[in-house]
Parts: sequence; structure tokens; C-alpha cells
Amino acid sequence: MKLQVAIDRVPLAYAVEMAQKLDPLVDIIEFGTSIPKDYGLLGIKESGLKLQHAQLLVDLKTIDEGVYEFEKGFEAGADILTVMGASSLDTLTKVAQVTADAGRDMLIDLMKTTPEKKAEIAGFDQAIYGIHHAKDIEGDFDAVETTAQFHQQFPNVKRIAVAGGINLDTAERLAKQGIAESVIVGSGIMKAADPIAAAKQFVEVIK
Amino acid sequence: MKLQVAIDRVPLAYAVEMAQKLDPLVDIIEFGTSIPKDYGLLGIKESGLKLQHAQLLVDLKTIDEGVYEFEKGFEAGADILTVMGASSLDTLTKVAQVTADAGRDMLIDLMKTTPEKKAEIAGFDQAIYGIHHAKDIEGDFDAVETTAQFHQQFPNVKRIAVAGGINLDTAERLAKQGIAESVIVGSGIMKAADPIAAAKQFVEVIK
Repeated sequence: MKLQVAIDRVPLAYAVEMAQKLDPLVDIIEFGTSIPKDYGLLGIKESGLKLQHAQLLVDLKTIDEGVYEFEKGFEAGADILTVMGASSLDTLTKVAQVTADAGRDMLIDLMKTTPEKKAEIAGFDQAIYGIHHAKDIEGDFDAVETTAQFHQQFPNVKRIAVAGGINLDTAERLAKQGIAESVIVGSGIMKAADPIAAAKQFVEVIK
Repeated sequence: MKLQVAIDRVPLAYAVEMAQKLDPLVDIIEFGTSIPKDYGLLGIKESGLKLQHAQLLVDLKTIDEGVYEFEKGFEAGADILTVMGASSLDTLTKVAQVTADAGRDMLIDLMKTTPEKKAEIAGFDQAIYGIHHAKDIEGDFDAVETTAQFHQQFPNVKRIAVAGGINLDTAERLAKQGIAESVIVGSGIMKAADPIAAAKQFVEVIK
């Protein structure tokens, strides 16, 4: 299973510094939504970020104007961009085309999508589907159980990423479960006393 | 009825220049989603924009992490920020509190919300509810009829804004209808040969 580290709500210079340090260790480095919204895609493009090993995901959370946002996002250097599952099917179809043309990847964020909406949008073969527990919603989230349920309901979806308060124990259980392609860890790594050491611990339990 | 002009998908310097020119004429100047996503809220904050008459709306399209995004958005100088109706009720409740604390306004974008979702979120007394036809969706949108229907279904919602391919004729009919508090015009003004003259025409038909 791949490890995606989400860097969010920090100054851009710190995000770039941490991304370079995490680059050799992890598979995907995410710049959370606050980074493009605070600094802009142009800020990211001009930040001097240069990854050697990891892919860069920018959590754009596109919900309309898909072609414009995805073209700008890939221009800014993203390997993977995110679109909300709650968008119209038109938006999803358009960003899927831009993504294919660019030879890159898209992640469909399933946050706050109803079962009917999930069924409507489950047919994007190449897309990564992100099972995502919103930060603003209080309460528990059983990532392993939610992933199992999603897989049972949508067996044709091949690429799944899981996010939302993932700790070492959950990451290990997701890896053993063998359904998700990647696990997304934010504060479990970035708010650790030593984020690099924490990332190494996550890599150990999921490989 | 108020006139909101949406400036979108243009360089920040041009957006600022046009905003200053439109400031004395219109009620609300919107920086469309592309402006914060391309240049960041920090870019807007540092752009030198200074409006004397109009309010500034930044179309942030918040869908999670509401407190962070709204605090940053108001810090950047916005008088009005947008949140997606498709967000969780938790997100909407949190941004409503940040908005009240700041003494400013929020617009809930109803794009792609189901009737059930609209009913769930219709109780934010102070909020502006944005009837919004997504740019990515092909096909016709009858703004006047949609506004009448929404008003009938949710008579307690007092503040309504309408967006989506609005031309002079639609704007005039919305003003006569007397339901919407504001009408949002994008390309009808910004893609006119003379945007200032076009804005004056819209003001004439809606006052």
C-alpha cells in the first residue's frame, strides 16, 4: 500500500521544506487545500518544489470549472489533482479527459456523497476514489470497515485511497485488508514531534 | 435588487484594475474561484485592492475546514465568502459562527444540492442562498422560474442571490419578480466589449 502524507495549514516555505525531506520516504506528498487557497497554484508553481521520488497531489477540491482548474493544477506541477464527487457528472467527465490528456491522475473525493451519487460516479476506470471523513464532522470513523463496505458496494472500483484521522494501527489494518491502494495520513505524521521518524514508522507498518 | 459582478479567470492585476473601475457602479464585486485558487488569499490580501463603495465577495467554495478557510478569507479583506451547500451541516454551522463573529456575510452555494439537502440547510437566517447553475453543466437554466420555485419551497429564506448565464432580459425579469436580493453577472459584463458600459446597462434595468 502506498503512503500519502498530507501537508496542510502551514506556511508554503515550510510545506516545501517538509516535502523535500519526505520525498525519499513516501509515495505521494499532498499539499492540502489550504496551500492552494492561501498561496495559489501560482505560488506552488513558483515555490521551487522539486520532488525526485514522490508524486505531488494538490488537493484542489474542484467542484465546477473543471477544465480550467485541472489545466492550471497540472501546469503548477501536480501529478494528481482532486475533484469532489459531489460535482456534476459533467465536471467529472471533463476533468477525467484533462487528466487523461495530461497522462496524470485524479482523485475523486467522496466526502458527503450519498449512496446514489456514489453509484452515479463510480464508473471512472482510471480514477482513484477517496474515502474521506470530513475534518469538520465530529464523531468516529471506522476507516477499515468503511473501506470494506465501499469495496463490497462498488467491486469494480480498483483504486481506493482512505483518509481521515489515520493512525499507525488503522494504517496497518488497512494494509492487511488489501483493498486500498493508498492511505492518506495528515496530523499522524505532520503533527508528530518528529515527522520524518513518524513517516518511517508508517512506511514500516504498511509495506 | 443588488448587482454582483463576477470577475473570473483573468490575471489578478486585471481583476484588481476592473474591480476599482466597477467599484462606484455596482454593489458587490466577486473574485471568482479561479482568483483565490490561482493567486491565493494572500495574493488577494497583498494586491492593493481597496474598494470604496462595493463589497468584496471571494468565491472560496469552502466544503470542509470551514473555520480555517473563512478566517483566512475575511483576513484577506472579503466582506462575503461562499460555502458549498453540499458541505456537512457541521461545516455550515461553523462558518456561520465565524461569519457572525466577523460581522460579515456568507453565501451558501446551492449548486448540485438535492431537495433533501436544501431542506436540511435552509435554516441559516442571516445567510444569502445562492441559486447557481454550474458552468460545467450544459443546457438551459430558467433563472426566474428556478427562483420562484425555490421561494415557494423555502419561504423562510429571506436572502437569495441568482447566478448562471444572466443577461439583461433575465436580470430585468428577476428585478420585477422581487424575490432575489441580488443578481450575479459574469460574462454578461466582463466579456462585453466595454464592461463598464455593460455594468451601467445592468444597473439601469434592475434599479
